[in-house]
Amino acid sequence: MAGSVFGTIFKISTWGESHGPALGVVIDGCPAGFPLSEADIQPYMDRRRPGMGKLSTARSEADRIEILSGVFEGRTTGTPISIMLRNTDQRSRDYGNLADTYRPGHADFGYDAKYGIRDYRGGGRSSGRETAGRVAGGAVACLILKRLGISFSTRVTEIGGVRIRDGETAETDSVIAALLEDARSRGDSLGSAVECRISGVPAGLGDPVFEKLDANLAKAVFSIGAVKAVEIGDGKEAAAARGSANNDPFRVRDGRIRTESNHAGGILGGISTGEEIVLRAAFKPTPSISLPQRTANRFLEETELVIKGRHDPVIGPRAAVVVETMCGLVILDALLLQRSARFDLLCQEQHR
Amino acid sequence: MAGSVFGTIFKISTWGESHGPALGVVIDGCPAGFPLSEADIQPYMDRRRPGMGKLSTARSEADRIEILSGVFEGRTTGTPISIMLRNTDQRSRDYGNLADTYRPGHADFGYDAKYGIRDYRGGGRSSGRETAGRVAGGAVACLILKRLGISFSTRVTEIGGVRIRDGETAETDSVIAALLEDARSRGDSLGSAVECRISGVPAGLGDPVFEKLDANLAKAVFSIGAVKAVEIGDGKEAAAARGSANNDPFRVRDGRIRTESNHAGGILGGISTGEEIVLRAAFKPTPSISLPQRTANRFLEETELVIKGRHDPVIGPRAAVVVETMCGLVILDALLLQRSARFDLLCQEQHR
Amino acid sequence: MAGSVFGTIFKISTWGESHGPALGVVIDGCPAGFPLSEADIQPYMDRRRPGMGKLSTARSEADRIEILSGVFEGRTTGTPISIMLRNTDQRSRDYGNLADTYRPGHADFGYDAKYGIRDYRGGGRSSGRETAGRVAGGAVACLILKRLGISFSTRVTEIGGVRIRDGETAETDSVIAALLEDARSRGDSLGSAVECRISGVPAGLGDPVFEKLDANLAKAVFSIGAVKAVEIGDGKEAAAARGSANNDPFRVRDGRIRTESNHAGGILGGISTGEEIVLRAAFKPTPSISLPQRTANRFLEETELVIKGRHDPVIGPRAAVVVETMCGLVILDALLLQRSARFDLLCQEQHR
Amino acid sequence: MAGSVFGTIFKISTWGESHGPALGVVIDGCPAGFPLSEADIQPYMDRRRPGMGKLSTARSEADRIEILSGVFEGRTTGTPISIMLRNTDQRSRDYGNLADTYRPGHADFGYDAKYGIRDYRGGGRSSGRETAGRVAGGAVACLILKRLGISFSTRVTEIGGVRIRDGETAETDSVIAALLEDARSRGDSLGSAVECRISGVPAGLGDPVFEKLDANLAKAVFSIGAVKAVEIGDGKEAAAARGSANNDPFRVRDGRIRTESNHAGGILGGISTGEEIVLRAAFKPTPSISLPQRTANRFLEETELVIKGRHDPVIGPRAAVVVETMCGLVILDALLLQRSARFDLLCQEQHR
Repeated sequence: MAGSVFGTIFKISTWGESHGPALGVVIDGCPAGFPLSEADIQPYMDRRRPGMGKLSTARSEADRIEILSGVFEGRTTGTPISIMLRNTDQRSRDYGNLADTYRPGHADFGYDAKYGIRDYRGGGRSSGRETAGRVAGGAVACLILKRLGISFSTRVTEIGGVRIRDGETAETDSVIAALLEDARSRGDSLGSAVECRISGVPAGLGDPVFEKLDANLAKAVFSIGAVKAVEIGDGKEAAAARGSANNDPFRVRDGRIRTESNHAGGILGGISTGEEIVLRAAFKPTPSISLPQRTANRFLEETELVIKGRHDPVIGPRAAVVVETMCGLVILDALLLQRSARFDLLCQEQHR
Repeated sequence: MAGSVFGTIFKISTWGESHGPALGVVIDGCPAGFPLSEADIQPYMDRRRPGMGKLSTARSEADRIEILSGVFEGRTTGTPISIMLRNTDQRSRDYGNLADTYRPGHADFGYDAKYGIRDYRGGGRSSGRETAGRVAGGAVACLILKRLGISFSTRVTEIGGVRIRDGETAETDSVIAALLEDARSRGDSLGSAVECRISGVPAGLGDPVFEKLDANLAKAVFSIGAVKAVEIGDGKEAAAARGSANNDPFRVRDGRIRTESNHAGGILGGISTGEEIVLRAAFKPTPSISLPQRTANRFLEETELVIKGRHDPVIGPRAAVVVETMCGLVILDALLLQRSARFDLLCQEQHR
Repeated sequence: MAGSVFGTIFKISTWGESHGPALGVVIDGCPAGFPLSEADIQPYMDRRRPGMGKLSTARSEADRIEILSGVFEGRTTGTPISIMLRNTDQRSRDYGNLADTYRPGHADFGYDAKYGIRDYRGGGRSSGRETAGRVAGGAVACLILKRLGISFSTRVTEIGGVRIRDGETAETDSVIAALLEDARSRGDSLGSAVECRISGVPAGLGDPVFEKLDANLAKAVFSIGAVKAVEIGDGKEAAAARGSANNDPFRVRDGRIRTESNHAGGILGGISTGEEIVLRAAFKPTPSISLPQRTANRFLEETELVIKGRHDPVIGPRAAVVVETMCGLVILDALLLQRSARFDLLCQEQHR
Repeated sequence: MAGSVFGTIFKISTWGESHGPALGVVIDGCPAGFPLSEADIQPYMDRRRPGMGKLSTARSEADRIEILSGVFEGRTTGTPISIMLRNTDQRSRDYGNLADTYRPGHADFGYDAKYGIRDYRGGGRSSGRETAGRVAGGAVACLILKRLGISFSTRVTEIGGVRIRDGETAETDSVIAALLEDARSRGDSLGSAVECRISGVPAGLGDPVFEKLDANLAKAVFSIGAVKAVEIGDGKEAAAARGSANNDPFRVRDGRIRTESNHAGGILGGISTGEEIVLRAAFKPTPSISLPQRTANRFLEETELVIKGRHDPVIGPRAAVVVETMCGLVILDALLLQRSARFDLLCQEQHR
């Protein structure tokens, strides 16, 4: 099916392979009249670039985006916004036996089983490079939300089972640095966890039953390669809790209904409560490791594989912005959909 | 928006409130010619009924389903299958201050913020009773999958932070029984965890990028009220793992590509690998507890609430079948969508 | 696929066969807080009932609707509204060779080719009786639109190639009456045309490119069985016109942009102009006629068929309300979708 | 809303304005393994180019397409196919008062009412140039259908109310040539009609109720700017027919069920019958004419407008390929969806 389209009102279609000439995204349904330029989006692209820090691969990709449509005289027009990135490093090279051999932990075998054909260059469509398109699209959503008072705070909380210390980041924490250096020297990789906090979301977003806000956030984040768990609020710990402790008492603060605690992570019954939304994602270790691995190929032969080239030893640091922008897409869509939920507001709008 | 419709090819629309005259589901897109009767679906309904065991509430609901359309001479016709359940216990009763007061841990406040109106009788649409419709719809999906060799094994693995012992179930384990009795006597409730294992799923299901199989499973399961975490395969533990241990080596067994281990839980890059799919969901404790709770009402007054009536002290045991049938909907939809993925198969079909 | 779901925000799912126990519709995405009762919808149902006039069949169907969910204390709650109609006349009867024989002009053969199984009792799902569900759903849309100042005027303009005279209706025009009496006495049937005029639609509804307002109206009306042509504004005559005559000059009237003429029928480039929307549909003659017909059966044998029972000699009079309510669904959905089109309005709403 | 996405399984997203840097289409859900190159698509692009004949404008646009993704080693991979066309003629020029003035017969006013902002250069997104993207996307659908034995024959049947004579085309018929020369010399334009015949479509495509094959064809064709009527089979004439003449008798020919006549145009009850599908579209005259026109501007002033530049005096000849490719998208989607309609076929597929 058409798996590369996301959203209901604010809808993105991404395209492009790791080693094709270009990749990009088409945003359809963006509200008209929003001030937008390449420079607004670029900071989001930079956050997912490799080579930005010692946690990421050295391969350089400029990731300069180009807006090809949908913006006129500095403002969105309501028509599709096409954003393209050229792949700068497309030189032909030797892919060795990757055309036939299934890399463990990767989608190679699944793609062959599904399609009977696969662009094996750098993982093709299943490459992490695919996220460039969605980050560009999601960045526009986040920018709009920012103007509406909704902001995101996303960070890596854990690498290889070790929590990043308070006041530190994945890049400054010396224990994490040692852990990563050790993994890299062994030709191995580490898992990680990312937390995204969203503040300013009004109460009432999300829809009952199947379009719950947390259900759509979970889908959005699980659609990022390597995610193996998503939690909202207390998440997995809620399974070990008592109701008397887990229920967040409603209180009245500054003339508004608020909860005293936030075990729920800002969502009850699939609808936002107005409290901070708290989501965590667990990423598996980078499947591309330098160590030799036992595997099989499409001729049904068992073989050994050594993956060459440099790869990030951990996924979280570059994926944090992907988590954030995917959440941005969900929140903005819910906000736009909410505008049709009430007859009383419909009457007001209509009679203006 | 329209949040009560789920699926792309095999699509269900559920309707009904906890204390309305009836509730139900309309299945659209069910393959024609499948043998189906009420008796086939009823066992799934019985698994989610209260009063079936000592873990559930004593309120008796027959949950007798009635098929109103889409089945002719014992077979599905391809047209919508409407299934209805009458609510037998609709006697008018005193809802006290529930019309105005927000129950902690419930969707009451969110619904009021969203819609400005709310059916407060028994939680209305946000009641767990809503799941009756989706279980009926999902049961049909599971029955079809069963005939295609795909089967489900779903069980409660943990209650109140205590793992159910090997060879025991949530109903037979004596430690669990004591834990529940204690919670019930205190007027409190407990969290729980449910695991769903799906075997026989062919490799190649799910779609790249946004319609990954795990993303859709996560959405489906997170759409069940009270779910706070979803994991696939090793789930959260993957965040603490090394790539060399987490990657599942591909091997050749009986002329097929298989993986030696299954840390991935049967899904890589969003596409099924043919291995068993393993999903876990964490449920928060039942929010309806007998203990007095501090809360607020819609007049922006702080107040105390005591919820009357009997409620399940734990959600998992009755929710297991909901997890299973929601997963069934996702797997069947992916299977139906996969039929259009390859040009070579399209040619074969066409020339038959 | 799931062909019985219609709409994006205001979404309906219809179900039910001609001779099953019941049929109905589930409305999902109805704005909350709208006053609604069975009595509001019933007049729309009555307009499509047979036996209401001498143009329709004598078979009596009460078509009493029952609202089963989504309305609380006289107002919609924003959750699914399930509406059911019992089929009162389900007595078992002799369907003769209809189980195997394909009625000319009907969907019988197509259904068998598609599904390999078919509920042949009274046409099953392909019966005109199916429209009861969509009229109930579309009536709710029309009622909401009415409260927002948008109204419909729908009438039969032509039967058997003869225009209904000014000031007359399909039921009062004596020439039409004679024409119908002649067709009925011969065991034959006649084609017809229906015109729907929609006033009060604000400028700016509909979406560019594929979701043009006229494209969705055309789909909605073509989804009614027996429709063979749809026209907007001057319709087919526009093909014979000159641009200088067909272009509607923009003028300023009462401080608003208006067009002097309305050849466009209220829609330009797929977007409403604020002028009256004018749509016409051509209905083929009722395919069920009393005259013997040559046909074939599913055993690949040629045969002769005589259809028994009484059938309407013309479709338009009962279908007019179906055209109207289908248009209502499209206009309301476009109105709800339009609420997310502009960033400036989004800011206003958000800061309220 | 997101109006630039079309289709369910085979889905296209188009983007781009008339005078932006580029425009294009992203195809998602294309079956994998289909041989495809730019050269296969180019002939379809050439058919909609201006300057290809004396019926079209002299403005030269190369319309060279570039495939940026989704094709690997000459075959589709099942992942999104991004196709881009650069706009070669983007030189800045004087748009005079077009930024503020509403051209009669165009979407200018509707866009302003909808979005409050509009790219006025050459009509922006509402320009006929937008169809380049959909033709590229639809061409891929048509190419796949061709390999499956389904072919299209599309031609202009009428210009300015005059039928093109048998054996002639819109370009060879001398009467038509005189008519066009006359319109052009007067600075005026003419309406036209296009007929599309589709042969080789198997019986059973399309879905009951709202996703009828003719409903989707009508929507697809009505989504082309300037279309004011769509007919299937006898179309509008069916409204004047008798059932005994309009019903197509079923016969048995070469061991297959066929109809003797084809008044239905290959579709009954929304499902294909296996007969040739016949669709006609009426196009209004080109709204851009050289004659001075009365109109209004966004400052609510009445004014006179003279549109400069060369424009096609008739739309049909260039739009024929747009009609054809839009129909191709609908037929292919219906074909792909049909693969999930029957349980018996599902079992066969699954057990292979």
